[in-house]
Amino acid sequence: MQFRFSDSLKNIRPSEIRELLKYASAKDFISFGGGMPNPLTFPMNDIREIMDYVLTDYGALALQYGNTGGLNELRTEIKKLVLETEKIKTDEKNIIVTSGSQQGLYELAKVLVNPGDAIITEEPTYVGAISAFDANKAEMHSIQMDNEGMRTDLAEAEIKKLTSEGKKPKFIYTIPTFQNPTGITMSLERRKHLVEIANQYEIPLVEDNPYGELRYSGERLPMLSTLDKDSNVIYLGTFSKVMCPGLRMGYTIGPEEFVNKFNLLKQALDLSSSTFSQYVAWQYLKRGIIKQQIPKSIELYRKKRDAMLKALDEYFPETSTWSRPDGGMFLWATVDKKINTTELLKDAVQEGVAYVSGNAFSPARIQSNSMRLNFTFSEEDQIYRGIEKLGNLIGKKAGVVQSQ
Amino acid sequence: MQFRFSDSLKNIRPSEIRELLKYASAKDFISFGGGMPNPLTFPMNDIREIMDYVLTDYGALALQYGNTGGLNELRTEIKKLVLETEKIKTDEKNIIVTSGSQQGLYELAKVLVNPGDAIITEEPTYVGAISAFDANKAEMHSIQMDNEGMRTDLAEAEIKKLTSEGKKPKFIYTIPTFQNPTGITMSLERRKHLVEIANQYEIPLVEDNPYGELRYSGERLPMLSTLDKDSNVIYLGTFSKVMCPGLRMGYTIGPEEFVNKFNLLKQALDLSSSTFSQYVAWQYLKRGIIKQQIPKSIELYRKKRDAMLKALDEYFPETSTWSRPDGGMFLWATVDKKINTTELLKDAVQEGVAYVSGNAFSPARIQSNSMRLNFTFSEEDQIYRGIEKLGNLIGKKAGVVQSQ
Repeated sequence: MQFRFSDSLKNIRPSEIRELLKYASAKDFISFGGGMPNPLTFPMNDIREIMDYVLTDYGALALQYGNTGGLNELRTEIKKLVLETEKIKTDEKNIIVTSGSQQGLYELAKVLVNPGDAIITEEPTYVGAISAFDANKAEMHSIQMDNEGMRTDLAEAEIKKLTSEGKKPKFIYTIPTFQNPTGITMSLERRKHLVEIANQYEIPLVEDNPYGELRYSGERLPMLSTLDKDSNVIYLGTFSKVMCPGLRMGYTIGPEEFVNKFNLLKQALDLSSSTFSQYVAWQYLKRGIIKQQIPKSIELYRKKRDAMLKALDEYFPETSTWSRPDGGMFLWATVDKKINTTELLKDAVQEGVAYVSGNAFSPARIQSNSMRLNFTFSEEDQIYRGIEKLGNLIGKKAGVVQSQ
Repeated sequence: MQFRFSDSLKNIRPSEIRELLKYASAKDFISFGGGMPNPLTFPMNDIREIMDYVLTDYGALALQYGNTGGLNELRTEIKKLVLETEKIKTDEKNIIVTSGSQQGLYELAKVLVNPGDAIITEEPTYVGAISAFDANKAEMHSIQMDNEGMRTDLAEAEIKKLTSEGKKPKFIYTIPTFQNPTGITMSLERRKHLVEIANQYEIPLVEDNPYGELRYSGERLPMLSTLDKDSNVIYLGTFSKVMCPGLRMGYTIGPEEFVNKFNLLKQALDLSSSTFSQYVAWQYLKRGIIKQQIPKSIELYRKKRDAMLKALDEYFPETSTWSRPDGGMFLWATVDKKINTTELLKDAVQEGVAYVSGNAFSPARIQSNSMRLNFTFSEEDQIYRGIEKLGNLIGKKAGVVQSQ
């Protein structure tokens, strides 16, 4: 039989990262590819104790179907968490629990975007967001970044232009803190400007904050959600980086009208997120284990970040540049512009080391000589060896290119 | 700010069942509404032991991100399971693990349906399928059922008509065994005819089989997947009724080309289903606990089904009819055609008893004097009392209607 597929997936790119994961477990292979937290940070004993408690005291409920919007007790704890960490004031009815924040990204696009509608993103941006937006046929207009984050002057110009063409963007998507893939944090001035633009042009702002708690240096900056007096910002959170990814727990916070739409869609998507995972996350927050866990992750990851920065200084050719993130899981390196990092990746994998090439994160596909390097998963000695290998490859390639 | 929502959700109906769940936990409230398994069937001690084992032996993997397609070891066990139970021969590469079979339904529609495309369903059909199909703007053509299941003669006529209009349906969706909501099982003859039609017109058949293992009487019939020699059938399975729903574990089996599309879409939807839930499901199958669990569920549910049938005989007015299911979780009652069961539900809830009204399951909205009654969740004495209350209400209503 000849299948007649819909054209809904024609824009989605197969994920290079998922491909790379195949190698990640091979012996001696060094992966800077995936966005995986280090399993040393998983609170294994606490999780075991919590799971046992949940089964004993809530078994019949925790293994049963649950509310589509999420466990009420968990929403209350999320409310407290975002107030304490990011000073975000919200309410249970404004929170919906999602199956990872990836589901939030998909829902967001599905709820707001008709095929062909314009949206604004950073250039580059999170590859999973690109998938979610492509799956809903959003037309991404990606805005150049510098060391202060999204160039909001360029964003405003693009919004003006699109609006004048009758194509006012449906939302602005940003990862303001320790951005994926660049590791860059948006400056306070830019944050204020972005909120101003969103209000002036009446375009919902979406801030995705998976890494906010993982700060190794510098001062915390206010989130867009707190800078916007009208509470119009949609906020995406996740437990993947502050508990573990394997339970697939995330949440979206937004205006009630918005959350209600999410709820309606989520009934069609998966009825509800795992009730059991929700009970575990609830107890993880309620018992305050998250507060013991985050400092441990920070201590571990700070060293790894420092190791990678040191290794880059030592081994990458002088023609390369890279970001110096204050937190998160990634840094972004740009090499000699004659080198195509998608091509280079094949050689790198041969040498036993991987990264994700820049264009995977590029809505405009203009990051052909950049790469995202994850520093949280590998051991420190692997970081040195992996960066040395990459540095040598890049040097060799640049030499060859030069001499051609 | 005025939100500008997409029109992608405009067809989705708010779920009456989710509404009813609010009452389900109220004291003395009798719910025949939800499709919830009885928590007594949850293998609590085995699950506790398995979770402990998974954390000890696979913790770093089970709490980490996983493959989008699903844990390979779990897929191997699913392969063995469907061979043993339903005689379906398949391969790991044809299986994708989903976040409940609800996700399979959504993916199915997203992957095959362009907005406005025709599909074939039963009339009535599963409410979650209606949501998933509506969310992807499928045009549902629902085919009348009788005691042998979908009227395949009518299905063929409809397909012929649609095809001649250039609207060949994208797929045929059926729940052949213990259908939701009717409890009816499709006869062998109809199964063969449906496979024949699918092959003749080259339309993929989708068989959803959440209840197949829960048989209380009668003989097992071959699934469409085994009747189709060309292996073109897409099969949806779930652990919700044979383990527990709270871990949100389902799976889809289909041609490789098809499963690859699912995989691509799933990256955008939620990256992967809970790794932890997958490890638990894997061990649940591998240890053979499912084989001890199913007979226990059958024993419990058979009594409840019998209780409900007996109560219906006793308390429902003679103008009513209902199905006599050989398995599953539901039966379908049709009352005096002057009674609107959506209207009646308000009175029923007042009286402390709930069902789901027929039109929730009706793509054509023509089931206004029917109701779905779940018999697995309530205690036997609740079943008697609940059916008595409903019978009285229906009798009273019919009398009033009569005398008007």
